[in-house]
Amino acid sequence: METIRLGIAGLGRAFSLMLPTFIADARVKLVGACDPRATARAQFEADFDAPAFEDVGSLARMPEVDAIYIASPHQFHAAHTRIAAAHGKHVLVEKPMALSLAECDDMIDVCRSANVHLIVGHCHSFDTPYLRTRELIASGAFGDVKMIQALNYTDYLYRPRRPEELNTQEGGGAVFSQAAHQVDIVRLLAGSRATRIRAAVGNWDRARPTEGAYTATLWFEHGAFATLSYNGYAHFDSDEWTGWIGEMGQAKHADDYGQARRKLARVQSKDEETRLKAAGTYGGESYLAPSRTKPDTRAHQHFGPLIVSCERGDLRPLPDAIFIYGDERCERHALPAPRVPRVEVIDELIAAVHGDIAPLHDGAWARGTLEICLAMLRSSHEQRDVVIGG
Amino acid sequence: METIRLGIAGLGRAFSLMLPTFIADARVKLVGACDPRATARAQFEADFDAPAFEDVGSLARMPEVDAIYIASPHQFHAAHTRIAAAHGKHVLVEKPMALSLAECDDMIDVCRSANVHLIVGHCHSFDTPYLRTRELIASGAFGDVKMIQALNYTDYLYRPRRPEELNTQEGGGAVFSQAAHQVDIVRLLAGSRATRIRAAVGNWDRARPTEGAYTATLWFEHGAFATLSYNGYAHFDSDEWTGWIGEMGQAKHADDYGQARRKLARVQSKDEETRLKAAGTYGGESYLAPSRTKPDTRAHQHFGPLIVSCERGDLRPLPDAIFIYGDERCERHALPAPRVPRVEVIDELIAAVHGDIAPLHDGAWARGTLEICLAMLRSSHEQRDVVIGG
Repeated sequence: METIRLGIAGLGRAFSLMLPTFIADARVKLVGACDPRATARAQFEADFDAPAFEDVGSLARMPEVDAIYIASPHQFHAAHTRIAAAHGKHVLVEKPMALSLAECDDMIDVCRSANVHLIVGHCHSFDTPYLRTRELIASGAFGDVKMIQALNYTDYLYRPRRPEELNTQEGGGAVFSQAAHQVDIVRLLAGSRATRIRAAVGNWDRARPTEGAYTATLWFEHGAFATLSYNGYAHFDSDEWTGWIGEMGQAKHADDYGQARRKLARVQSKDEETRLKAAGTYGGESYLAPSRTKPDTRAHQHFGPLIVSCERGDLRPLPDAIFIYGDERCERHALPAPRVPRVEVIDELIAAVHGDIAPLHDGAWARGTLEICLAMLRSSHEQRDVVIGG
Repeated sequence: METIRLGIAGLGRAFSLMLPTFIADARVKLVGACDPRATARAQFEADFDAPAFEDVGSLARMPEVDAIYIASPHQFHAAHTRIAAAHGKHVLVEKPMALSLAECDDMIDVCRSANVHLIVGHCHSFDTPYLRTRELIASGAFGDVKMIQALNYTDYLYRPRRPEELNTQEGGGAVFSQAAHQVDIVRLLAGSRATRIRAAVGNWDRARPTEGAYTATLWFEHGAFATLSYNGYAHFDSDEWTGWIGEMGQAKHADDYGQARRKLARVQSKDEETRLKAAGTYGGESYLAPSRTKPDTRAHQHFGPLIVSCERGDLRPLPDAIFIYGDERCERHALPAPRVPRVEVIDELIAAVHGDIAPLHDGAWARGTLEICLAMLRSSHEQRDVVIGG
């Protein structure tokens, strides 16, 4: 069994979402971490019998570390990648890759120079239903992709946030955080270079002044177009159209309706909200540790209803199956429940580090997604198409 | 009871879809008709004990006729409206109103000069779930409309068609026939003037060379935006998201999967397809008459899944209910099954003719929808936004 010794840069929300994977996948050993919060460091040291530092440099200097998972706030991704690469560590960096294309270019350069792999994720485009749908398309059985519809209605904007997460300039808002998933998935399935985009963003809650919603049309070189919509102010929950299985593959319950807004309504100030977020994160007082033995893996993770229309069939990836709607009949292609949530990330990381297999979600790929996200903001602001790569 | 004596110009598909309404609504008396097909005229005369002519002029000259329902092919709407108005008959004209804005202007002018009402429909924006949703929005309880999502995946392009229905120049294709519904509904719910549109149309079956699909973003004066998507090449059926109730309010069955494509695959030529369409239409040999006593009105008609997002709630019109997703709770507002399908059209017609109440779906309104549909074609062709009313 090929293993990977991982250092963790940032023990926040992204890490807590990856932790069930790290715990359940025997190939992963967490050998060190860094975080500015003493409570998070203390919990990490207790949980993993491994050192946790205040700064990323100390982590990067650990000889035991093969790769660093950079899960610090978006605005630190580039700097932390530079430090990791300088110490010869492979990089798994959270999405969005960075906040500007210049940062992406720098990250790609430093990793290439250091001869380390750079993988961007977890992103929902790693989820098995999308990867399998991509294979079905690549088989040629359904002809060319012509139209993709992706939508997602969530309570994204009303979950507890740090102030910077509500400030677009600092990488906050639905375009940086959520379009990063949806655009990546749609690009992967289109299988062609995106050439132009026209988008409209919604920013309609003055108390949380960042993009909470968007809609976009994306055109591809081979002629297909895609419609992407996201509403993070939503009251309707589009998980109704994914069999009431939530983003993390979990069962959802009707009595959770409105929970995010209700909780937030009780919060008195920005400071209290920041504390609330920290409390629920790794090392915080209300943090719930994932079970070490039984992660909730009843279904795959996902990012909302999606339909790929090809010439001779529509494909609909769902958390537990792919529906294949052909000319003659509809087939349900069942997807076994995952052994480990987000195992696809570890598969790609280990294949790169040990097999030197070029990752699908490498720096150049993720830069392409950021370029489209930035173009969404620009298209909405300038009220016109933005040409991609132009 | 106020009644209306109706003449029918065109006994084709549109008429056959309105016939259950005319039969079930005791206020409507069909007193005459015209159609080029002798079989259709013979059936009309037998069914309604009323004359059927070859030409619309003879129908328009009947003193017994209060209003003419113009259900001739799209390209004749303007000319037939002119004839009806010239004889002082009120006009109910099928959607799309016409094929050009100049025709619309002419229709509006001739009806105004003749002092007759002009109503455009049936269009699915008459359907009670949308009209009730509009009232809920107008109540102000949910704040401003911010975002609308409308989509519809059907087998539209694979139903039997006459050649002109597959030729955009003659008013064929999904933009003229289907966007006419979706745009009208979205405008009605937005409650604000549309200012610009960006669209992409799909035309990807060479055997049926017209638009079968589209996606569009529509912007409104008060700041909202709407996403409209339609796929008439679809294998996936979005009626799954409307409780398996079809466009006509009927129950849908899984074993009907792929029926339209299967039937069409057996057709050898364009002529045979034209005959097939005629055969299934009023007066044709395989035409099934609606029951005179029990129309299928288990639920309202609809035009696909739609969500209106307001500041303080999402509204989701469905064929049998409106779901109201508020900040605190989700409520299902049940809609009683309609007494008569499409009764809303007759209500609006009678209110106009007898009460002189200005119709919602008048010529100026429907002209606005056609303007947007034409702008969709132009936006896709010119690869840029088209300003509406500009």
